[in-house]
Amino acid sequence: MSEPCPTLRRDGDEVVILDQTRLPHEESYVRLHDLASAAAAIRDMQVRGAPLIGATAAYGVALALRHTATDEALQQALDVLRATRPTAVNLHWALDRMRAALQPLPPSSRGAAAWAEAEAIRRDDAATNARIGSHGLAAFRTLATPNGRPLQFMTHCNAGWLATCGHGTALAPIYAAHAAGLKVHVWVSETRPRNQGLLTAWELTRAGVPHTLIADNAAGWLMAAGRVDAVIVGADRIAANGDTANKVGTYLKALAARAHGLPFYVAAPRSTIDFACPDGAGIPIEERSGDEFRLIHGVGEDGRAQRTRIAGEGAAICNPAFDVTPAELVTGIICEFGILPPDALASLQNH
Amino acid sequence: MSEPCPTLRRDGDEVVILDQTRLPHEESYVRLHDLASAAAAIRDMQVRGAPLIGATAAYGVALALRHTATDEALQQALDVLRATRPTAVNLHWALDRMRAALQPLPPSSRGAAAWAEAEAIRRDDAATNARIGSHGLAAFRTLATPNGRPLQFMTHCNAGWLATCGHGTALAPIYAAHAAGLKVHVWVSETRPRNQGLLTAWELTRAGVPHTLIADNAAGWLMAAGRVDAVIVGADRIAANGDTANKVGTYLKALAARAHGLPFYVAAPRSTIDFACPDGAGIPIEERSGDEFRLIHGVGEDGRAQRTRIAGEGAAICNPAFDVTPAELVTGIICEFGILPPDALASLQNH
Repeated sequence: MSEPCPTLRRDGDEVVILDQTRLPHEESYVRLHDLASAAAAIRDMQVRGAPLIGATAAYGVALALRHTATDEALQQALDVLRATRPTAVNLHWALDRMRAALQPLPPSSRGAAAWAEAEAIRRDDAATNARIGSHGLAAFRTLATPNGRPLQFMTHCNAGWLATCGHGTALAPIYAAHAAGLKVHVWVSETRPRNQGLLTAWELTRAGVPHTLIADNAAGWLMAAGRVDAVIVGADRIAANGDTANKVGTYLKALAARAHGLPFYVAAPRSTIDFACPDGAGIPIEERSGDEFRLIHGVGEDGRAQRTRIAGEGAAICNPAFDVTPAELVTGIICEFGILPPDALASLQNH
Repeated sequence: MSEPCPTLRRDGDEVVILDQTRLPHEESYVRLHDLASAAAAIRDMQVRGAPLIGATAAYGVALALRHTATDEALQQALDVLRATRPTAVNLHWALDRMRAALQPLPPSSRGAAAWAEAEAIRRDDAATNARIGSHGLAAFRTLATPNGRPLQFMTHCNAGWLATCGHGTALAPIYAAHAAGLKVHVWVSETRPRNQGLLTAWELTRAGVPHTLIADNAAGWLMAAGRVDAVIVGADRIAANGDTANKVGTYLKALAARAHGLPFYVAAPRSTIDFACPDGAGIPIEERSGDEFRLIHGVGEDGRAQRTRIAGEGAAICNPAFDVTPAELVTGIICEFGILPPDALASLQNH
């Protein structure tokens, strides 16, 4: 992949996003023009992935301040965006960064400064992705098998370029390995209920990286069969002790990786670490609508996009969006500063 | 549930089955009239669930011998039916029982005897289900919480009356508990890729048993949150050492149950134990078509049944139908003779 597809870009005084609720069946773009549309894009998961949520929120502040950039307008923008999704801490990190950049300025300077800071957050995220790729690649080289068979990775959800402003978090080292000529193959877990694994498969197809889709249920069987060398996932929030919140189902993969002695890596920028949260018990877990479970997006026999309902309106559904993987199941956290064991995160506190 | 819905019944010299590929969206019945249609019903999963597969195969022999009951015809029926699905051992058990009953007879007596033996297998399965229900209920009473909150079960796939000729295997103790007035609630795991959890929800709705659907990925989160008291599943084949093949994804739930100190029960008739198989490594695991993953059955916005494709024809898909849960993760195997620890199965060898 030479140039990442634009998940998010400024166009004049609007922002254009790739609508991820329509992928992989349709590639369409949506224009955000104000605070409300930016907040809705995050809440409705037109943009998703912790780093991209953070960057979109930053642009949302810039959109909110286009006409009025008073203290009240700034505070309202921060409050509205902060309330969109509870688990990804990058959202708060990005909003804190925007506040720190804008609050000291006179209102008349805030508009231009907001765009500039949002652009800086986007560029920084891309640079962070690249460093995560390099550090991960170094670790993967030590896993390479002598007999030349492909390195077999398993991932969950989508932590690729669709989830970021660059090459991704969990997928960045895989892209780096592929670019470096290592033979790799990726087991892509469907990731019910929202099927973000299909986004990962779509990305990997475009990048020419060999991969195979599996039902989430198949992860344990593949590991038991010796067909997985490492698991690598992204993160939505990492507590100070290394407990990691990520897409629901991550924990089951971590348990299986441990049962089979496989390395389990979490790849995420420093901004995903929440030092205010001592451990996973303090991470809020978002529960989302049962419609995510009930309604399947795909294409019909005529090739047109359609939705299929698999359970009735009356069916009780419990739909947590994330789970917490305890630090003791995490082999290493790959961030822009290197690969750290989860109990060494404190060294990053002042970075 | 006063009277189980007929999953399988003789009607003259045909057999009527409930077509489970159309449930829960449509309740329709299919008539089997010969060996080929019986074999196809098993292969295409119009009937499913290890005990019901066995009973259907028995009726398939009776259908095959309607006109000709020579040794060759009998052998061909056994061979064709045996090849339909590789993992469920009840299939082989039922066919062995049919052969033992029919082979000594003159061809002229085999037709009527085949119907009689198939009926006996069906009645025996229903009786076995009832005994599994009683034994399981006794174990569940010891789990009952003093504060009166419902007992929280988690199950996977469908091991209810749809999978058997009676009240089910894993669900039989839950139905027995509900009938005995215990407050119960069941977490019903979707069970991708074929979504048999929707069959379980449909059954439990008809029986008035409180339940909630979850994505397979949510199992670990619920256990970590203390919202599960026990896991109970069926089985497709149990090796002599207690290693248990069941619907893919079962193993991940067993690992999570162990991580949280929760009892993990397997409910299955004695006929599911394969003493010829020393451990799980000897159990063949069926890999099925990627179309099961790719095509989702549901209803459209007009309320009519439809299929939605979520991944293209070109997408590589790996679709194992089962996985193996090691015996050390199994608290007890509930069969018609009682509840046994997995290392005590040898006591059943001569039953």
